[in-house]
Amino acid sequence: MDFITLKEKIINAKANANIAVVQPESPEVFEAIKSASMENLCHFSLIGDQKTILMQMEKVGLKGCEIINAADATCAAYSAIDLIHRKQAHILMKGNVPTDVLLKAVLDHEKGLRTTQLLSHLVIVETHERAFLGVTDGGINIQPTLADKVSIIHNAVKFFHRLGVEKPKVALLSATEKPNPKIPSAAQANQLIDLVKAANINDCLVYGPVAFDLAISRRARQIKKVDNKIYSNADIVLVPEIVCGNSLAKSLIYCAKFHSGGVVLGAECPIILLSRADSAQEKLNSIILGVMQCIRC
Amino acid sequence: MDFITLKEKIINAKANANIAVVQPESPEVFEAIKSASMENLCHFSLIGDQKTILMQMEKVGLKGCEIINAADATCAAYSAIDLIHRKQAHILMKGNVPTDVLLKAVLDHEKGLRTTQLLSHLVIVETHERAFLGVTDGGINIQPTLADKVSIIHNAVKFFHRLGVEKPKVALLSATEKPNPKIPSAAQANQLIDLVKAANINDCLVYGPVAFDLAISRRARQIKKVDNKIYSNADIVLVPEIVCGNSLAKSLIYCAKFHSGGVVLGAECPIILLSRADSAQEKLNSIILGVMQCIRC
Repeated sequence: MDFITLKEKIINAKANANIAVVQPESPEVFEAIKSASMENLCHFSLIGDQKTILMQMEKVGLKGCEIINAADATCAAYSAIDLIHRKQAHILMKGNVPTDVLLKAVLDHEKGLRTTQLLSHLVIVETHERAFLGVTDGGINIQPTLADKVSIIHNAVKFFHRLGVEKPKVALLSATEKPNPKIPSAAQANQLIDLVKAANINDCLVYGPVAFDLAISRRARQIKKVDNKIYSNADIVLVPEIVCGNSLAKSLIYCAKFHSGGVVLGAECPIILLSRADSAQEKLNSIILGVMQCIRC
Repeated sequence: MDFITLKEKIINAKANANIAVVQPESPEVFEAIKSASMENLCHFSLIGDQKTILMQMEKVGLKGCEIINAADATCAAYSAIDLIHRKQAHILMKGNVPTDVLLKAVLDHEKGLRTTQLLSHLVIVETHERAFLGVTDGGINIQPTLADKVSIIHNAVKFFHRLGVEKPKVALLSATEKPNPKIPSAAQANQLIDLVKAANINDCLVYGPVAFDLAISRRARQIKKVDNKIYSNADIVLVPEIVCGNSLAKSLIYCAKFHSGGVVLGAECPIILLSRADSAQEKLNSIILGVMQCIRC
């Protein structure tokens, strides 16, 4: 699977998904919206200062979006969430609202989009072999506990099921394959595997501890003489903490030049958090990943 | 600077460095020794079971190495260290001796190769722009304290000085550029910068916290509107803990396909720990990095 195939799937499925964009203001956000609109990937409801939105739409030549006026960032966030509750929108997307304001509204116990799962961030990269590799969580959870990791795995596995991967392989990343008691991610891998089983997260293969080379490289598997092909074929890499996930994903994007997109999981709908540093293509890929989740919902 | 230029420098310098190899036994180790010998990079003293060594030398067609018989791994390690003390060898290299046995001998308070610095591992990758980027420590120190990190930075900076980089730029890696109190590497960056200054580690520029994209990518710097060019131009990336460093280095090697080599620093001489999963070129690069350290000693 790759981003181009995924885009074609979405276009063919005529999903009619609607994305609620919270406080779109900057040209980059409007460029992303325009390119997704032109590809007929989805519709958009733009929620924020009406004047600014109209001006930016005209600037980039964007037409046919619903506009909902909102006084400030918090109002815009709650309006967007309301659209999701009323099933008039299916995906939430951050425009120029500060991330903490958006997530605070999402996590609101009364009016938000909370589920029993943790919110977690998943980066998807397309490797040179045109396979999707997920890295989670390098964006939201700083130092997740084992229970948090079960939820992060749950979110990513469910995401891959919707991508059409029936039994995603989840590598529990560490610096070694030995259960080294001094390295928490290596020492606790077996316990985490048991917790995932106990949580009834089915249709996935969780294994580890494993270093990154053995998680993704056939050459490393052959040299290290590991027969089990589950190694070297990870769909999802679960990282121990945020700096590891953040750096790993960024090295795959900036140095390996893998195409990429990202999405926040664990809420009632996918949440797209575009980053300023994302390229136009990365922004479009994130929208593709969000819409894809809705087709199979 | 790149590995080919570095190799030529060494050949031209006629360094006459001698590498003491502890317990060489496997064909891969002898292939690495042979290729370094053929390039006239250095000499080798091979320390271990004489019969095995002679047999393997014949197999790969290797000639002209000193052979020192040693009864077992520990004896071989101490014999090699003795050669270093007597200045008959200048670099220590792991053959098939277990890493812990070798490092235990190196760290022996009486007979070892201890200095006042911590032992630390440095991976050097050659980016597509033919620049060297160091990642430390993804190999030895699991969860270094701030004091440990000062020593790790000291080792890497000294290494880059010998590579000819007068004022290496050291990026303190985190997931953000903000001093987020919840992320230790982000919260403690300023304190670490002060400790580096207090330790009189001069001729380097330590900065952070910084996420990987802003540490190495000009595009990220432009988009994030950071004027200071120290960003996006790191020579050395200091990682918070071992899994982050290990995964980052491996993604640069396996996914970005950067040429690489690695070396252990902080002892009285450079230590080369080849890994089974290293390619022939990576092994040669590690030897190049080790020998380079001796030219300017």
